Amino acid sequence: MNKKLRAGLIGVTGYTGMELVRLLAAHPCMRLSFAASRSEAGKRLGDHYPFLEKLPGADLVIRQPDARQAAAQCDIVFLAVPHGAAMNFAADLRGEGLPVVDLSADFRIRDAAIFEEWYATTHSQRALLKEAVYGLPELYGEAIAEAKLVANPGCYPTASVLGLYAALKHGFISSEDLVIDAKSGASGAGRKAAVPTLFCEVHDSFRAYNLGKHRHTPEIEQELSIVAETPVRLSFNPHLLPVDRGIHATIYAKLKGGHTPDEIHAAYVECWKDAPWVRVLPKGGLPETRNVRGTMFCDIGLAIDPRTERLIVCSVIDNLCRGASGQALANANLMCGLPVDCGLVQAPLMP
Amino acid sequence: MNKKLRAGLIGVTGYTGMELVRLLAAHPCMRLSFAASRSEAGKRLGDHYPFLEKLPGADLVIRQPDARQAAAQCDIVFLAVPHGAAMNFAADLRGEGLPVVDLSADFRIRDAAIFEEWYATTHSQRALLKEAVYGLPELYGEAIAEAKLVANPGCYPTASVLGLYAALKHGFISSEDLVIDAKSGASGAGRKAAVPTLFCEVHDSFRAYNLGKHRHTPEIEQELSIVAETPVRLSFNPHLLPVDRGIHATIYAKLKGGHTPDEIHAAYVECWKDAPWVRVLPKGGLPETRNVRGTMFCDIGLAIDPRTERLIVCSVIDNLCRGASGQALANANLMCGLPVDCGLVQAPLMP
Amino acid sequence: MNKKLRAGLIGVTGYTGMELVRLLAAHPCMRLSFAASRSEAGKRLGDHYPFLEKLPGADLVIRQPDARQAAAQCDIVFLAVPHGAAMNFAADLRGEGLPVVDLSADFRIRDAAIFEEWYATTHSQRALLKEAVYGLPELYGEAIAEAKLVANPGCYPTASVLGLYAALKHGFISSEDLVIDAKSGASGAGRKAAVPTLFCEVHDSFRAYNLGKHRHTPEIEQELSIVAETPVRLSFNPHLLPVDRGIHATIYAKLKGGHTPDEIHAAYVECWKDAPWVRVLPKGGLPETRNVRGTMFCDIGLAIDPRTERLIVCSVIDNLCRGASGQALANANLMCGLPVDCGLVQAPLMP
Amino acid sequence: MNKKLRAGLIGVTGYTGMELVRLLAAHPCMRLSFAASRSEAGKRLGDHYPFLEKLPGADLVIRQPDARQAAAQCDIVFLAVPHGAAMNFAADLRGEGLPVVDLSADFRIRDAAIFEEWYATTHSQRALLKEAVYGLPELYGEAIAEAKLVANPGCYPTASVLGLYAALKHGFISSEDLVIDAKSGASGAGRKAAVPTLFCEVHDSFRAYNLGKHRHTPEIEQELSIVAETPVRLSFNPHLLPVDRGIHATIYAKLKGGHTPDEIHAAYVECWKDAPWVRVLPKGGLPETRNVRGTMFCDIGLAIDPRTERLIVCSVIDNLCRGASGQALANANLMCGLPVDCGLVQAPLMP
Repeated sequence: MNKKLRAGLIGVTGYTGMELVRLLAAHPCMRLSFAASRSEAGKRLGDHYPFLEKLPGADLVIRQPDARQAAAQCDIVFLAVPHGAAMNFAADLRGEGLPVVDLSADFRIRDAAIFEEWYATTHSQRALLKEAVYGLPELYGEAIAEAKLVANPGCYPTASVLGLYAALKHGFISSEDLVIDAKSGASGAGRKAAVPTLFCEVHDSFRAYNLGKHRHTPEIEQELSIVAETPVRLSFNPHLLPVDRGIHATIYAKLKGGHTPDEIHAAYVECWKDAPWVRVLPKGGLPETRNVRGTMFCDIGLAIDPRTERLIVCSVIDNLCRGASGQALANANLMCGLPVDCGLVQAPLMP
Repeated sequence: MNKKLRAGLIGVTGYTGMELVRLLAAHPCMRLSFAASRSEAGKRLGDHYPFLEKLPGADLVIRQPDARQAAAQCDIVFLAVPHGAAMNFAADLRGEGLPVVDLSADFRIRDAAIFEEWYATTHSQRALLKEAVYGLPELYGEAIAEAKLVANPGCYPTASVLGLYAALKHGFISSEDLVIDAKSGASGAGRKAAVPTLFCEVHDSFRAYNLGKHRHTPEIEQELSIVAETPVRLSFNPHLLPVDRGIHATIYAKLKGGHTPDEIHAAYVECWKDAPWVRVLPKGGLPETRNVRGTMFCDIGLAIDPRTERLIVCSVIDNLCRGASGQALANANLMCGLPVDCGLVQAPLMP
Repeated sequence: MNKKLRAGLIGVTGYTGMELVRLLAAHPCMRLSFAASRSEAGKRLGDHYPFLEKLPGADLVIRQPDARQAAAQCDIVFLAVPHGAAMNFAADLRGEGLPVVDLSADFRIRDAAIFEEWYATTHSQRALLKEAVYGLPELYGEAIAEAKLVANPGCYPTASVLGLYAALKHGFISSEDLVIDAKSGASGAGRKAAVPTLFCEVHDSFRAYNLGKHRHTPEIEQELSIVAETPVRLSFNPHLLPVDRGIHATIYAKLKGGHTPDEIHAAYVECWKDAPWVRVLPKGGLPETRNVRGTMFCDIGLAIDPRTERLIVCSVIDNLCRGASGQALANANLMCGLPVDCGLVQAPLMP
Repeated sequence: MNKKLRAGLIGVTGYTGMELVRLLAAHPCMRLSFAASRSEAGKRLGDHYPFLEKLPGADLVIRQPDARQAAAQCDIVFLAVPHGAAMNFAADLRGEGLPVVDLSADFRIRDAAIFEEWYATTHSQRALLKEAVYGLPELYGEAIAEAKLVANPGCYPTASVLGLYAALKHGFISSEDLVIDAKSGASGAGRKAAVPTLFCEVHDSFRAYNLGKHRHTPEIEQELSIVAETPVRLSFNPHLLPVDRGIHATIYAKLKGGHTPDEIHAAYVECWKDAPWVRVLPKGGLPETRNVRGTMFCDIGLAIDPRTERLIVCSVIDNLCRGASGQALANANLMCGLPVDCGLVQAPLMP
C-alpha cells in the first residue's frame, strides 16, 4: 500500500468529493492519504461515509484544509471546493510545490475577464491561470501530462465538447446556430441542504433552469471555438432530471450539406476509435444515461433530420464520474505518469 | 345519477382509458355507462382497477366492444384504442348516430396522404376525416361544440401548439428554424408489456427516441402552419423521462427582433388571460411538470437569450390528462353543451 | 364564493400546509380565507405556490400568524405548525372562540405525562388537552361533530389503527406480540432543508429509522388499547420509502385460533362496508400505495400464514391526505356540520 | 487475456446474466468465453448490451445453449436460467466434467420433497442434488472450494441468514416467532415483459406480495435450522421497492434475555470482523441499500426494543450482486482456487 501514490482531497463532503473517495478506494496505484473538510474535521472517514467501511480510506481521519500538511502527506492534491475558494487553495498548494487538479471552475476560462463576468467574482490568481491546462484528456492529453495545475472541465462542457468535436473538426456543421438542450441528474446540484433539491421537489418532476445563462456556456464556447477555429456562440440550456447521475446533451446543429449520413457517422467512428472512453453508437442507436453510470464513458448517438437539414448529436456521460471526479483522476494519472485509465476501467452499473 | 350524461369508453385497459375512468368517477354531469375491452370483457371494473372501488363506475361490467350496444347505452363515446382500429370504430359509432371523441391519431391529420405516409396505414374513412374537428378547445372551441367527431390532439402537439401560439400569432418569431426538444413521462409509452418500459429499464435513466421521426411531427406542423398562416416545417425530438406523467417541451425559436422581452411576455399574458387552463408564469419563472400533475393546466415559461437572439418557450402539461383523456373530456363537455371545464377544475397533486 | 365557510391555515409552507391549500382549492363549501407563515408573510399565495394559479386561494396574501386576525377572518382554523408551537396557538385561537383542527401531535396523547416523555416537551395546555377529541372520523365521528378542538391523528397511527381495528374488536388476534413494520413516503419527513432528505440521499435507496422509538408508538398503543379494551404494547418500526406519498403498514399479529380465514375476511368487510373510505380488498388481494394516492382511502389487505398462525394486515393510506390534511378537512367538515366527505370524494391519481 | 480462466454463462439476457457480464468484464483472472441464449443467439454481445462496448466480452457472439460446446470453451459455467430448466443443464454440464454454479433454486433445498412442494416441480436430478453445496461463502467456504456443483443462494436468504447468524449462534434470540419483513428492488422480479413490472406500475408506489408463501421461505428455514441446531419455522414476507437494486430485510426476533445490548452488538462485530463483506454498523447505526449498491457487502444494523424485548436486525444487500451474480462469482473464485474476493473488491456506487 505504501508504494501507492498519495493523493490529497480538499473538500470531502460534497458529491464530487464523495465520488473521488469511491474511485480512489479501488485505484491500484494511488491512495487517499489526506482528506480535508472544515465542517467534518476530526471524524473518521468511514464513520462519515458508511459505504466506505472495509475499503481503503475508511480509517483516514478528516483534517482541516491546510496546504503545508497536504504537502507533507501528498504527491498530488484534488480540490473539490466551491469556485472562488479553489483559486487560493491552488495557489497555496502550488506554492508548496504540489501538483493540483482543481475540480472547480476557477481555472477553466482562459480569459479572466470572461470568468469575472460570468462568475461575478474577481480572479485573484491570474498568473496561475496562465499555466493551467484544461483537463479534457482526449483533447489535451500531452499538455496535461506536463501540467502542474489542471482545470478539470465542467460536466456539461465535457459532454458538449466531446459530442460536437468530430462534426466541427470535419466541418460537417455550421459553427453558428448551435443549440444545446442538456439534462442533468440531481447530483449535479451539489449536496447542500436546500428545499429545491429535496426528494419531494425533484422526484417525479422535470424542469429547466438558467436558460441561456448557465456558467458553463463560456466554457463550452471557448473549447468549441478552438475546435472550429472560429468564434462559436451558442445557446446552452440545462434541465434537472429526477435521476442521481447522468447528463444527456441533445445538440442541434445545421448541416452544411455535401456529406451523407454514412460519411458523418463513419467520421465519428474513426475519430474516436482509439479513445478508450468515447463510444459512438451504431447507426440508428441512441445513448441512455444508465449505460455510462459510474464510468468514464461518453456515449454518442447521431441522428440526421433530413427535413430540417440538421445533425442531432446525443452525448451522454456520468456527471459525477466523467463530468467531475473520474476525469480528475484521469488527469492525475497523466500528471503522475500513470496510464490515463488506471483505476478507471469500469463496467457501468446496470440496471 | 340517472340524469347524468352517459359516456361510453372503448378501450379501458390502457393508461388513457384508465385516466378517463378516473376523471369520469369525479364528473358531476357525466358518468361511465359502458366500458369495453376485448381482453377484459366480463370483468367488473372495480376488480380490474382496485383504485376505483367505492367510486362511481366500480360496479360496471366490462363489455366486448360493440357499436350497437354502445349506442343503446351511451350519449357519447370515447375511443381509446390504437390508431388504425379507431377509424373503423368511429365509423360504426357515427353510423349509430353517436357523437365520438377519438383519442387516437386517426382523424388528427387533415390530409389523408400525410397521415398515410407518417403512420404507414391506409386511411379507410376519408369521408369521416372531413367532418372531424381538431379538439384543442382554446383554438377550436366553437367548432368542437358543433362537432359529432372530434380528433383529440396528441400530447406533444398540445404542449407545442399552446406554447408557440402567441409568439407565432404576434409574429415575434420566425416560423422557420423551430426546434422542439420534448420530454415525456413513461405513461406516454402506453401500458403494453414490453422490456424497454420495464421499471429497471426506465428508472434512473434518460434517453431520446425517434429523433426527427416522431408521428406527432406532422400534427404539430399542421396546426402551427394555420397559426402562422404559412407552412411550418420544424424539428421535433422526443425523450423519455423517468416520471409517471408530464411533458416538458423546450422550444427554440429565432426572434425576429423589434420586440422587447417585456412586450413578448405581456402579449403571452394577454393572449391567455381568459383561458382557464393556460398559465403564463411571471417573468423569469420556469414551469415544472409536477405543477400540472393530474390537471388540464398548460404552464408556459419564457426565456429570452439575447446572445443568440432566441425565444425559448417551456410548455408543460400532464400528458395523460391535458394531453389525452382530460382534453377528451373537455371536448365531450363542449359537444354535450356543458361548460368546458365541467369535472375538470382540479388542483395539481403536489408533491 | 362568500357564502363558503372561511378556513384559516397557520403554517402554509410545509407539505401538510401545501396539501390543505390543494384540498381547499377544490372544496365546494369551504374556502381558504387566511393563510399565515412567519417566513413567507407578505407574499401572494399563488406566487409562493405556482401550482395554485388560476385556482381558488391564489390571490390570498400570506400573513403573520395572529390569533385575533384569524378570528376576524375565519370560521375555523387549521394548525400546521410543529408540535410544541401548536399547543399555544390552539389556546390563543380557542380564546378567540374559534374551533381548531390541530395537525401536530400536541393534543393526540390523552395522558400528558406520556406526551412529555415521548416528545421531551412540557405540555403547557393541560386543560385544553382534556377537551380535545382524537380526530379519526370512523371511530369518533359523533364526538368530533361536537368538538371545538380536534387532535388530528398521526399518519402512521391512522393506517395502523384502521388496519387492526376489526381484528382486535372481534378478538381474532392476541393483543400482545403485535409488530408493525411501516414504510412512509418522503413527504412524511417534512419540507425542511436537510441533507438526509435531499433527492440523491433518498432516491433509489431504502432505510429504516427510529426503530422502536418513533413518537407515534404511544399514540397507536393508546388507540388500540381502547379498541382491545386492554393495554396494548407493541413494536412499531418505520422505514423511509423513495416515493412522494404513501404509507404501507405491514402488521404482524398472532391469531387466537378458532376462526377461519373466510370468517376473518368477512368480518373485515362487514365492519367497513358503510365507511366511505375504508376498502377491504377481495380475498388474496394486497393493497398498493398508488391506489390511494391523493385520497382519503385506507386500503386493507389480509393474509393468513397458517404455518406460523399469524394474521398479516397490510394497511395503506396517503400520508399527506388521509394521514394529515385530508383527515383534518374531514374533521373540519364534521365540526362545521357538513357531510364528512364534502370536498373529499376523490379518485386516486393513477398512475 | 488468454491465461484467464474461461467462464461460460447460460442465460445472458436476464438481470442476473447481465450482472455476471458486468462483473466478468472487470475480473482480473476470469473472462467470459461462452455466452448462450436461445432468443439472442447469433448476436454480438456488445450489440445486445451497449453498456459493454469497449469492455472485455463485447465482441463475443451469443450462442445456443449447448453443454458440449460449453465444455470445449469453458473452465467453469454459470447457469442463469429459470428453475426447472437449470437442473437438466447442470446434469449435462457435469456429464461433460465441468464445474457449475447454478443461480437458480434447483439445488438449494437439500430435501427434494420440500423443493417439489414449494416449487410445484418434480426434481429430476436427485443424485446431483446430494453433491451440491450451498454457496454462501461465509458459512460454507471450505466445502465450496471442493465442490463441483454449487447452488447459489437466493437473494432474500442471503440477507436473512447473514443477518440472523450471530444472534442464533450465540443464542441471544428465540428460534421461534421469527418474522422477516423484506423489501426488494424491482430487478429481483426479473426482466420479462409484464405489465406489473412496467415503470408506471412500480414507480412512486409500494406493495407486498406472496405474504407467507414466497419460495425462499424453506431455504431460509433450512439454513437457519442448521445454525440454530433446531428446526426453525418463520414468517417471511416480501415487498416490492421502487428501486433498481437492493434488499432490506427487517427481522424481528424475541430476545431470550440475559444479554445486554452492548454484548449483542459486540458479538456481531466479533463474528464478522474477518469477513471481507459483512459490515456491522456502529451502535445506533442503520443500513441503507445504497451503501451496498453494486457490491458484495452485507450491512447489518441492530436495534433493541426494550419495551417489547425484541432484537430487530436490519440486513441489507444488493440483490443482483451479493444476492445473485456477485455471490456466484465468489463461489466460482473458490472453486477455481482464486481468492474469494478476486474481481469483487468494489466500492458502492454513491449516490
